[in-house]
Amino acid sequence: MTAPYTLILLRHGQSEWNELNLFTGWVDVRLTEQGRAEAARGGKLLAEAGLLPDVLHTSVLSRAIQTANIALDAADRLWIPVKRSWRLNERHYGALQGKDKAQTLEEFGQEQFMLWRRSFDVPPPELADDSEFSQMNDPRYAGIDGDVPRTESLKLVIDRMLPYWSSEIVPDLTAGKTVLVTAHGNSLRGVVKHLEGISDADIAELNIPTGIPLVYRLDADLKPLGPGEYLDPEAAAAGAAAVASQGKK
Amino acid sequence: MTAPYTLILLRHGQSEWNELNLFTGWVDVRLTEQGRAEAARGGKLLAEAGLLPDVLHTSVLSRAIQTANIALDAADRLWIPVKRSWRLNERHYGALQGKDKAQTLEEFGQEQFMLWRRSFDVPPPELADDSEFSQMNDPRYAGIDGDVPRTESLKLVIDRMLPYWSSEIVPDLTAGKTVLVTAHGNSLRGVVKHLEGISDADIAELNIPTGIPLVYRLDADLKPLGPGEYLDPEAAAAGAAAVASQGKK
Repeated sequence: MTAPYTLILLRHGQSEWNELNLFTGWVDVRLTEQGRAEAARGGKLLAEAGLLPDVLHTSVLSRAIQTANIALDAADRLWIPVKRSWRLNERHYGALQGKDKAQTLEEFGQEQFMLWRRSFDVPPPELADDSEFSQMNDPRYAGIDGDVPRTESLKLVIDRMLPYWSSEIVPDLTAGKTVLVTAHGNSLRGVVKHLEGISDADIAELNIPTGIPLVYRLDADLKPLGPGEYLDPEAAAAGAAAVASQGKK
Repeated sequence: MTAPYTLILLRHGQSEWNELNLFTGWVDVRLTEQGRAEAARGGKLLAEAGLLPDVLHTSVLSRAIQTANIALDAADRLWIPVKRSWRLNERHYGALQGKDKAQTLEEFGQEQFMLWRRSFDVPPPELADDSEFSQMNDPRYAGIDGDVPRTESLKLVIDRMLPYWSSEIVPDLTAGKTVLVTAHGNSLRGVVKHLEGISDADIAELNIPTGIPLVYRLDADLKPLGPGEYLDPEAAAAGAAAVASQGKK
């Protein structure tokens, strides 16, 4: 198939721990009712725009899978093929997983807090293997290449996401399929950084709102023909601002 | 991996057209609230029995996919790999699709009605391609091998289901995976007929209830080590009786 190719990115809606303002990472929490409504609206926006996915890629975290299931139901595309990978997971937040964001900000101060949240290559402290928030014994990671992470920086997320992008997503795109990727703030940030050539320094400022499909048209070299377009730009701007202010009460 | 292998069959719960007592076939209706509750209970029964699927196979009909999504959410196994195929679809009911069951019984009489519903190899009349209930132009069947059906007997369902069984499900079983197949009354009947060696005449009497996992342990030759076991035998017996009496008001 010839370009342009169509890529749709969708960040999962509100989860139980977003609502509680906790660092989540690889902890497998579910969507809230609000999160489910966001997902349904995302699917409706796709259908209204006539953007019908031919194939779905998700992380192995339930909140992204629930988002995909609900959105595809709303768009009447439940039947498309789906592939899942831990490589599309959210950033592993290390020892911060399970901690209150506002409390962490207060305890460690603004500088350390922002370093953990927004630096490119500084991971938080490692999570102990015997923590209740560790994924060391989670069966979904039994087949993982190498170790289950104990913490990750954004750089490490991108390092493990890009091989999946190249080996699984790119072939679907170049086959002419409309590809939907349903994932997380940081794994999707990695995709956008890669596509738009955003620098390590500038990626910190990119905030992807939840539940609003972000659409790219890509040329034959998989370069974007223009900036990514949100299907609801107004809601996307408000959503991005809300993400940026997380941690503040 | 060595036998015994574990196979779980799950028939979708009540759909909008089950509730209305209409012949459904390949028409892509959704689950009712009751159907969703059945699916959640099915998933809970799996989790309580410690029967955790490693891989999912579904039809491409939304009611089976919704059932799988809800059951796997309840069993905390949303993340397992999934494969879908039209070969697991419900029987195509031909010109009966969209018709009221009780009305059809009244109009054509008990003998013709039971012939269409329960004979092994007599399909109902063909559905017209321009019918609102035809799937001729449904994009999910664009890649189908051969023609989209216009009607099917149970024999034709089994003929198109078995190649998928052999090429996709058997390799997962013999790899030692616990396999969940979420599908429909007639495609699952085909699987059970094949496994248990039920005759063409006797398969008419087999009624698989909705929403209750049916578990088989298979030996190295994929022969059942015993009869299939429902995870809730009492509810299964009541459910099978309800299916058998369909069409009666």
